[in-house]
Amino acid sequence: MRKINIGVVGATGVVGETFLELLDERNFPLGQLRLFASENSKGKALQCQGQDRPVEALHADCFRGLDLVFFSSGDDISLEWAPRAVAQGAFAVDNSAAFRMQDAYPLVVPEVNGDLLPKVKAGQTAEPIIIANPNCSTIQLVVALQPLLKKFGLKTVRVASYQSVSGAGRAGIEELLSTTRIALEGEDIKTSETFPQPVTFNCVPQIGRFNDDGFCTEELKIMSETRKILRQTSLPISATPRSFGQHSIKM
Amino acid sequence: MRKINIGVVGATGVVGETFLELLDERNFPLGQLRLFASENSKGKALQCQGQDRPVEALHADCFRGLDLVFFSSGDDISLEWAPRAVAQGAFAVDNSAAFRMQDAYPLVVPEVNGDLLPKVKAGQTAEPIIIANPNCSTIQLVVALQPLLKKFGLKTVRVASYQSVSGAGRAGIEELLSTTRIALEGEDIKTSETFPQPVTFNCVPQIGRFNDDGFCTEELKIMSETRKILRQTSLPISATPRSFGQHSIKM
Repeated sequence: MRKINIGVVGATGVVGETFLELLDERNFPLGQLRLFASENSKGKALQCQGQDRPVEALHADCFRGLDLVFFSSGDDISLEWAPRAVAQGAFAVDNSAAFRMQDAYPLVVPEVNGDLLPKVKAGQTAEPIIIANPNCSTIQLVVALQPLLKKFGLKTVRVASYQSVSGAGRAGIEELLSTTRIALEGEDIKTSETFPQPVTFNCVPQIGRFNDDGFCTEELKIMSETRKILRQTSLPISATPRSFGQHSIKM
Repeated sequence: MRKINIGVVGATGVVGETFLELLDERNFPLGQLRLFASENSKGKALQCQGQDRPVEALHADCFRGLDLVFFSSGDDISLEWAPRAVAQGAFAVDNSAAFRMQDAYPLVVPEVNGDLLPKVKAGQTAEPIIIANPNCSTIQLVVALQPLLKKFGLKTVRVASYQSVSGAGRAGIEELLSTTRIALEGEDIKTSETFPQPVTFNCVPQIGRFNDDGFCTEELKIMSETRKILRQTSLPISATPRSFGQHSIKM
């Protein structure tokens, strides 16, 4: 089996770390593995498949020779660098919201609409593209909705989500842990650096910013991405996401 | 203004403690205040309105001379003792689920259906009765639904609730705090004494027990109590309660 050359942009973040764990767990047929992060992380190394892997800063032509680059460094980095990865011959799988709602880009949950991915036969190569990856809550939702849609059709969707602070990355997890320590000493936590309100022993009914219609970013993402993935452009859907003092990954 | 003689059954619990705080805060025109709890608490004293108040165990004729007795000690205690309070001349306001869904007893949220309470004119007395108090999530829900019902009518109600561990009383709060301390030391919390699953940094989609139809107690309470209070016996309502590592009262 041909080995695959992988790049991870945002390798030092919570999602990047999880990519590396999955490559380990699945014993992925890894050729090269190139890790990218901000200038601050240059010189660091991360473990994967038993080897120390140096972390590089992004730079011109850094994706040459890679087959597949995973992006998880926010919209701005993806907007600038994912098209470069494609130009340099790699598929870009993008975790950010940068391309999700643009018609030109497939927004894919493999179990639901994997048919949008290019089909490659043995010995052939496909034209690299950017493949957008939806919001975390959307992924789980469409996997549940797709068989219902197929079997019965969907009239309306109303969904309440219960989300971990890890949605805000390492900063979210670290704030939860540090403020919880302080709260257990009996001190009131009155402000938050990462969330609209403190999350310690709390439940915050806002993820992202509110728009003029009173929707927060997370609600809009769940609604619009679900419609795009299910190809139900006018499906009535309402979402009520809550983020709270929970996290689903190792401390 | 005539002073009112009050009894609190379950005085040492979280709800009992809150009763005493409210009597303080509102500078309630308190005559006698009699505090009742289990045999274990006999001999203790609690502060209210600047005085030490001894805690008694329940005993025959213990409600004589009281105008109003608040019950918050669970269904069994209420079933046995609330009728006795009434027989001894006191109104019983019951926080338990013992009488809520029995037709003979008014289930009251004063802002919504306070018209069910006996009207007493100055100088007159009313026949004492048991007044049931709904589940905490129902109270907030019906206050929001009542004006909508009045103005527009209600077709269906779908509600997701986000509930504090304090719904499980002092044991719930204490377990949250102690297991959170342990989790912050890096230890996995695998079991819970108070909840179906550990609540620390978690969200538990079950409050109470599941019945054969797959509803948990809390869901059934929200649905049936809301219908009774709004006098909408066939209102379609579905509830999705979650309890999680949150608490809304002082540690």
